[in-house]
Order: sequence, then C-alpha cells, then structure tokens
Amino acid sequence: MGKMDRQLHLKPAALATWLEVAHQLADASGPVIMPFFRKRMRIENKAGIGAFDPVTAADKAAETIIRKTIAVQFPDHGVIGEEFADTAGTSPYTWVIDPIDGTRAFMSGMPLWGTLIGLMYDHHPIVGMMDQPYTRERFWGTAKGAFGRSVSGEIRRIKTRPTTTLTDAVLMSTSPDLFKPGTERRRFEAVSKVARMTRYGGDCYAYCMLASGHVDIVVEAGLKIFDIVPLIPIIEAAGGIVTDWTGAPATGGGRIVAAGNRALHAEVLERLSA
Amino acid sequence: MGKMDRQLHLKPAALATWLEVAHQLADASGPVIMPFFRKRMRIENKAGIGAFDPVTAADKAAETIIRKTIAVQFPDHGVIGEEFADTAGTSPYTWVIDPIDGTRAFMSGMPLWGTLIGLMYDHHPIVGMMDQPYTRERFWGTAKGAFGRSVSGEIRRIKTRPTTTLTDAVLMSTSPDLFKPGTERRRFEAVSKVARMTRYGGDCYAYCMLASGHVDIVVEAGLKIFDIVPLIPIIEAAGGIVTDWTGAPATGGGRIVAAGNRALHAEVLERLSA
Repeated sequence: MGKMDRQLHLKPAALATWLEVAHQLADASGPVIMPFFRKRMRIENKAGIGAFDPVTAADKAAETIIRKTIAVQFPDHGVIGEEFADTAGTSPYTWVIDPIDGTRAFMSGMPLWGTLIGLMYDHHPIVGMMDQPYTRERFWGTAKGAFGRSVSGEIRRIKTRPTTTLTDAVLMSTSPDLFKPGTERRRFEAVSKVARMTRYGGDCYAYCMLASGHVDIVVEAGLKIFDIVPLIPIIEAAGGIVTDWTGAPATGGGRIVAAGNRALHAEVLERLSA
Repeated sequence: MGKMDRQLHLKPAALATWLEVAHQLADASGPVIMPFFRKRMRIENKAGIGAFDPVTAADKAAETIIRKTIAVQFPDHGVIGEEFADTAGTSPYTWVIDPIDGTRAFMSGMPLWGTLIGLMYDHHPIVGMMDQPYTRERFWGTAKGAFGRSVSGEIRRIKTRPTTTLTDAVLMSTSPDLFKPGTERRRFEAVSKVARMTRYGGDCYAYCMLASGHVDIVVEAGLKIFDIVPLIPIIEAAGGIVTDWTGAPATGGGRIVAAGNRALHAEVLERLSA
C-alpha cells in the first residue's frame, strides 16, 4: 500500500470518520453543482486572453460550501482548493479540494468531470474521493480499501488489473495538448506508440477507471496538487502506483504517471525519464 | 431541416411508429450489452496484428438481437450493421445499426459509447437514435424534433446553440489519431487552432452534446456509414448541420463535420477544404 503504511498510527475509527466526512462533503457539493451542468452560463476566463482556463460559478459555489462545512466542523484543519487561497490549519490535517476537476469536460456536457475531495495527514494522503453527481457515480479509497458506486447505486470493492507489459496496456490521458512540444511530448508519445491503445478525454474519471481495472496507465502533465492528491488513496488502495515522471511522490502534482501495478509502472517510468 | 424535408410524403403516424420501433430495439439491446460492460472479456482483434479494431462479444450479441427483431417484424426491411453482412430489403426501408459505437471507450470503462440505431427511407435518414444503457441516457431525432433523456429519466427537447464563429466554438473529436498525417491532419489542426477549445474522446456522445447545445463542432475522419447515419436525424432535428468535408451528404461516412448552425458549418468547411 506504499505511502499509506506510514499512517498506521491513525486509529481505524478515525479513518472511518474522515471517510464519512468526505462522503458528507460530496453529498453537499453535488446538489450545488448540478443546477449549472448542461446549462448555458457565463464562463470566466481566469487565464486571460489567449489561454483558456475556465472557472465556472459552479466551481466557486461548490468549493464555498465544502470550505464552510470544514471550517465549522474542523476549524483546526487546513484547506487547499482550486478556487480560493489556501487556509492554514493548526493540526496535521489538510483537505485538498477540486470542486470540478475537468472543467472542459463539464463545459462540453461530458459526464467525466468530478468533485475531488482528499484529506492529508502530515502531508500524506489518507482519504481520497471522486464524486460524479450527474451519473451519481462515486469512487473512494483509504488504507482500508478502494470502492466504487455505479450509476445504479451498487457499491463494489475495486482493484487494478494485472496487465504487466506496455504492449498489452490501455493508456489514457486527458489530451495530447497537455504535453509541451519538445521533450515532454516526445516522452509521452514514446509511451503511447508502444501501448496497445491510447484514449483521450479522461480527467479524474480516467484514474478511477484505472483503479477499477479497465485502464492500465494514465500519463499527464501540468497537474496541480488538487488535481491529483485526492486520487492517490483511490489508486493506491486499489493496488496501483502513482508518482511523478521521476518516481517521486505524486503529491507535488506536475508530470504524473499512474499504473495498475509495479512492473508496468517501472516500464513506463523508464520510457518517460529516458 | 435539410434532407428531412424530402420525406414529407411519409405520414406522421408512420414516422411515430418507426421511432417507437427504434425505442424497442434500444430497449432490447441495452440489457444484452450491459453484462459485458466493465467486465473482463476476450477482445477479438478483427484488424489483425499491428492495427487495433476491437470487436466484443457484446457488439455481436446486441446486433444479433436487433437484426432478429427487425427480421421478424419487418422482413421486407434492409439492415446495414457493423458486425454482419448487409441484409438487402425489398422495401425502401433500411436500418443502419452500430451496436457499440465507441468500442475503445467501452473497453476503457468510459460511459461515452452508444448503441446507434437509424432508419433510412429511400437512402435518406428519417429516424436516428443513440442509446447509452449504462447511464440510461438516450437521444433521438425525427422530422418532428430531437429529444434527450437524462440519467434521471427526464425527457427534454434538445437544440443546438447559436455560436456562429469558430473562435467562440467548442470543438470535439474522438482522437487526433483519426486524422492521417499530412493534409488531413493539417486541416483538422487548422480548425482546432482557431477554436476556443478542443476536447477529445467523444465518439457518438459528442454529436449528442452538439445536438444538445453544449458542443459547437465535431470533426472526424474515417467514419463508417453506421457510425454517422443514425446520428444525422438527431443533429438535423436539433438545428445542426452534418456533411462530409466537401459539403456532400454525411450518409456516405468518411470525413465528417457537424456544426450547430449553418454559419459555423460554412466557416469550418472552408478551413477543412482549403
């Protein structure tokens, strides 16, 4: 279970409590976001002319309700979120929130965006959740396991699949445009060319499909920490590995590679760092 | 409504009947496909070593039940489908079926594939349907309008949005790898560079989001006729335009461009044929 081993001093009861809080936060944010999904809305462009990094009213509204809930119940917890300044905590606990991961998917009406809710203890992710309020799917992970809830409401333990060679692997990435032309893009292409199949357009959903054993590798670049931290416990508890392209912890964001198992991760890492 | 005008000699009652048949075919195929979705399965590789064009047991099972239903109820109708040889009819009616459009999405666990069911009268598409049995979404169109059913079961009339310039447009395409390196890829990139945003990974779902007013343009290449014919009535009844890159009817497949309105279609066509 990798990095989660270090948190064994956390009592299981505490972990169950934090997971329950994550569920409550997702239960609260979904209904705030949904009135905006597939509606015509004003899109703010926070990156200015030329770039395109949309942030929607839904994004802000959802992060606001999540932050408010945490501040009331756990005033000593820190919060790192996409839309507002970091809140420093006075305890080892920090929530990491991306209210709408995949704003481009959201804007295109595609149901592949998600609300990401993670909890770090002393800088180690211990609870992770991805909530998709349109399809009502939800994925979560802790040291006690990874689980997925389907459209029909069925909850199942999820695990990665044992594909061990890149030539047999299904690779996903949100877009080839994530990779800067030059070395970064060439390295991605070196992996993509060997993989059995490459599929674009995943966002957080792709990592959940990796954790569920339908996708073998996700390779991305330019991720913020709130784009990846809440997904780490889901991937690791399902049996997967997620790091940056040098093999360092994924908690820093940036260039990320996730794989369903250690052998495949090692093979991909070699090509990404070549 | 473009090509659908020519079918005005069809009695409305007949059109309603054919739409009802399409719903029955989707109701029958969904339960046949679902046991295979997100399950581990044997993937046949019909394109041989080197290429990758998976065809699943689900694909064949669904097309079999659809063909059987049509053969029993309407033995004089023709059927064109992905998995089996064409069945010639003795009437002007031909069904065009793609049991799983987006087999790569299906294999990755992504809920963006769909069962496409279309009916042509005298070579003109008059009924079109896209069914997504995992999310329970369904989209359909006839000369009487285009409609969408959401995850929650709500049915609404859908229409394209009025974005008229490419710089404001959301562009979708299943993958940049659809386009052959050289002229074909350069033309797609000429459109993509000017568009406000490009999103990959759509398959049939992208055309339904265009018909629903969330996406403005879909550009693809290498489509078979069953990949596009069942989507034409949905797009056209919602107010959109779909042709090949030369402006000829989309019923032949190949290089396809769909847009939410005539002005945008004209602008994109100019760049694709330059």
